Amino acid sequence: MKRYEALAETLAQDIRNGSLPAGTRMPSIRKTVAQYGVSPSTAFQAYYRLEERGLVRARERSGYYVAGPTGRTLPPPKARPSQKVSTEVDISRLVFAVLEAARDRELVQFGSAFPSPELFPWNRLGKSLARAGRDLDPWYSVNDLPPGNPVLRQQIGLRYLGAGAPQPTDDIIVTNGALEALNLCLMAVTQPGDVVAIESPGFYAALQALERLKLKAVEIPVDPVDGVDLDALEAAIGRHPIKACWFMTQFHNPTGASMPEDKKQALVALLTRHQVPLIEDDVYGELYFGDRCPLPAKAFDTDGLVMHCSSFSKTLSPGFRIGWVAPGRFGEAIRHLKLMTTLSAGVPTQVALAEYLQHGSYDKHLRRLRHVLETRQGQMITAIGQHFPDEVRVSRPDGGYFLWVEFASGFDALALHRAALAEGIAIAPGPIFSARQGYRNCIRLNYGHAWDARAEAAVATLGALARAQSVAAARR
Amino acid sequence: MKRYEALAETLAQDIRNGSLPAGTRMPSIRKTVAQYGVSPSTAFQAYYRLEERGLVRARERSGYYVAGPTGRTLPPPKARPSQKVSTEVDISRLVFAVLEAARDRELVQFGSAFPSPELFPWNRLGKSLARAGRDLDPWYSVNDLPPGNPVLRQQIGLRYLGAGAPQPTDDIIVTNGALEALNLCLMAVTQPGDVVAIESPGFYAALQALERLKLKAVEIPVDPVDGVDLDALEAAIGRHPIKACWFMTQFHNPTGASMPEDKKQALVALLTRHQVPLIEDDVYGELYFGDRCPLPAKAFDTDGLVMHCSSFSKTLSPGFRIGWVAPGRFGEAIRHLKLMTTLSAGVPTQVALAEYLQHGSYDKHLRRLRHVLETRQGQMITAIGQHFPDEVRVSRPDGGYFLWVEFASGFDALALHRAALAEGIAIAPGPIFSARQGYRNCIRLNYGHAWDARAEAAVATLGALARAQSVAAARR
Repeated sequence: MKRYEALAETLAQDIRNGSLPAGTRMPSIRKTVAQYGVSPSTAFQAYYRLEERGLVRARERSGYYVAGPTGRTLPPPKARPSQKVSTEVDISRLVFAVLEAARDRELVQFGSAFPSPELFPWNRLGKSLARAGRDLDPWYSVNDLPPGNPVLRQQIGLRYLGAGAPQPTDDIIVTNGALEALNLCLMAVTQPGDVVAIESPGFYAALQALERLKLKAVEIPVDPVDGVDLDALEAAIGRHPIKACWFMTQFHNPTGASMPEDKKQALVALLTRHQVPLIEDDVYGELYFGDRCPLPAKAFDTDGLVMHCSSFSKTLSPGFRIGWVAPGRFGEAIRHLKLMTTLSAGVPTQVALAEYLQHGSYDKHLRRLRHVLETRQGQMITAIGQHFPDEVRVSRPDGGYFLWVEFASGFDALALHRAALAEGIAIAPGPIFSARQGYRNCIRLNYGHAWDARAEAAVATLGALARAQSVAAARR
Repeated sequence: MKRYEALAETLAQDIRNGSLPAGTRMPSIRKTVAQYGVSPSTAFQAYYRLEERGLVRARERSGYYVAGPTGRTLPPPKARPSQKVSTEVDISRLVFAVLEAARDRELVQFGSAFPSPELFPWNRLGKSLARAGRDLDPWYSVNDLPPGNPVLRQQIGLRYLGAGAPQPTDDIIVTNGALEALNLCLMAVTQPGDVVAIESPGFYAALQALERLKLKAVEIPVDPVDGVDLDALEAAIGRHPIKACWFMTQFHNPTGASMPEDKKQALVALLTRHQVPLIEDDVYGELYFGDRCPLPAKAFDTDGLVMHCSSFSKTLSPGFRIGWVAPGRFGEAIRHLKLMTTLSAGVPTQVALAEYLQHGSYDKHLRRLRHVLETRQGQMITAIGQHFPDEVRVSRPDGGYFLWVEFASGFDALALHRAALAEGIAIAPGPIFSARQGYRNCIRLNYGHAWDARAEAAVATLGALARAQSVAAARR
């Protein structure tokens, strides 16, 4: 990391953690030079970078100010209270409608679950596939049965090592994307009728998996800044025979929340005391904007209770359908379930990804990808500040590509969803992220697609639609 | 099909259906020429082909005789009576041990579930993959979400059309191999606690799926020649609230049984009367030895009750993990389950297979593959006739690559399995094919691997081990 990038990151952290609140004047270049012992040129470059990231704004002859752009602060959304009872999950078809919209190239893809396809290194991946095709070994088909291609698992092991959370390569099980890994983990530790703790709001696939497996959900509130409420979790463990937790610890979908490392450590300690397994969904972990990959909860796992699931679907290509799990003590059960349900992940794609990870400059690609996503986050937040109603609250995640936007209570995100679709804009309405279809006043926006005039106009349209709804509500 | 092939097939059918029993003299060349109106050269070629297939043997100066090779007849195994009660399924770890052995290249692969990897067109598939790599379209990743790649589904639709069982292309759903298709179908039509009819003996994955989904099994006996006992099925439907049937209608695993088309029609009629869905596992259908692909039960489905599952795993490569289902009336439920569990099949492999099916001479490859498998079947049956104990009974399937071998009652297939492994030979012992671990006196042998001196020696070793066990049993 270059000097100016390190300085920008330090300042960005001060902005994100509130030490430098929105609207305050940033220290002058002169002060910054003195305080951090850098050259004026480095200080300038750091400020340019912060501006590019949408974190600060220059005002003529007056220096830099912490964004919102018009002086407006965009406060983070609020956490919701925990639900007191466990509920049988019942997810509507809305999720499928939202997924279906992601397929339509003509729509503005603010509702998509994936970053824009143009962000992935297709040419290089194509080369890896071609090589895999040339070197296809007949015996791969049996060799790569679970736990999966040995070279690929070795490469995944190396990434754990690099992130400071080493895992035994022998344990790693390759799956059809993280979604299968998560489902297998859930099956490995539950029986129909069991109670599972999930996040609220949370990833709809968790709700669907619970519904499918006849499990009961206890929803634990997620603070849109630092994730799952541990007090609420501990209370829930006291009240319900919780058999597993399924949490997204970093760049949470949909809120963007990340648990700080000490909170992750506390989470694992709490679960270890009660011997409750944790299914850790960490598919966005590599998309951090900070100076290093935050440690996952798995890094603090002493008892093999954490099943750490991830994939290449958000960083290289969703279509390869290659994920994995570092399964802790549940490896054998998960391997057997994998054999029983889909046998193995695709062999040619495993071989191609193994080749790419060895020779394809994955880290360079990731640095570029993170930079683009962070820049687009700033651009979208700026546009939201300009166009959305005054009372709106917005998350500002340290990574990933989702913003969680909260309107005033009484706002109808489903109505906005329908009105936006009619204007050619897909969004993800809040109700798809909870068992009780709460979060009616929230939406999730994907900023991982091209930021251009069309996207900016789409934010303006959303803002106008939202304002119109507020006005109509006020009249009633 | 050439003339001599058509004649060979006609005669082969007479042998298989018992019109020409083992040991009888075949009609002379002169008679054959007169009876079928072919040239002497065609008649000779047909007899050579039958000899190659192990169906007849030449005796010097005496003409051709229907095999067994030493004059021995190898009668087919017997059907078992139906079980009267539904049972909670509990499958042992033995299945995983048998699967694990398939991974060891040093073993003789009579226990494998796949044909030999050398039978697949790797070079051509590699080219398809390389092309898929070159043409990788960023939008594939969302386009190929369920139901799957449009070109691939079109090609699958064309194969149904060619087989005389047309299916709407729009309905076809691409899956991670047939195993996932079968599992999704089962989930689509059952709830935990439901009763499902499966075959006995039957494919262990069906047993495992039932166990995993907390379903109860009613085992319907399979006749090793013509498949499921329909009277037993009807009786079971009267006694149990059966929610679905999971049957392999052609080249059944493990017995090799195939239902004749009129029996398939009767099966569908019976199930339609009772409105019981049929999950038809037809993964071996393309490996027929006759002159055309037999119609699947799906061809007789008028009510959308049949879910027809197949894949390219037995004909092109297990490692591609591409299967599909023609889902009848259950399409929406299956598509949604697919989205919830593994999202989609791998995109590059779908694209590569679509290219292969369009331009890769799949039919030519299949003709060669069928020819090789049929020849190897004859070779293995001949060797079994030479080496196995007198009381052995062997199936002679019209396709696929499994033989079902039945020893005298009291024989211990698990002991043979252990003794054979110690000699470097993997087999599939009968008990892995039923919920109650019956079929202790049966084994399944895979003849889809190279037939060479080592394979022949392995059959001799198995024969010696089996004889030794019989002798030891007689002494006790």
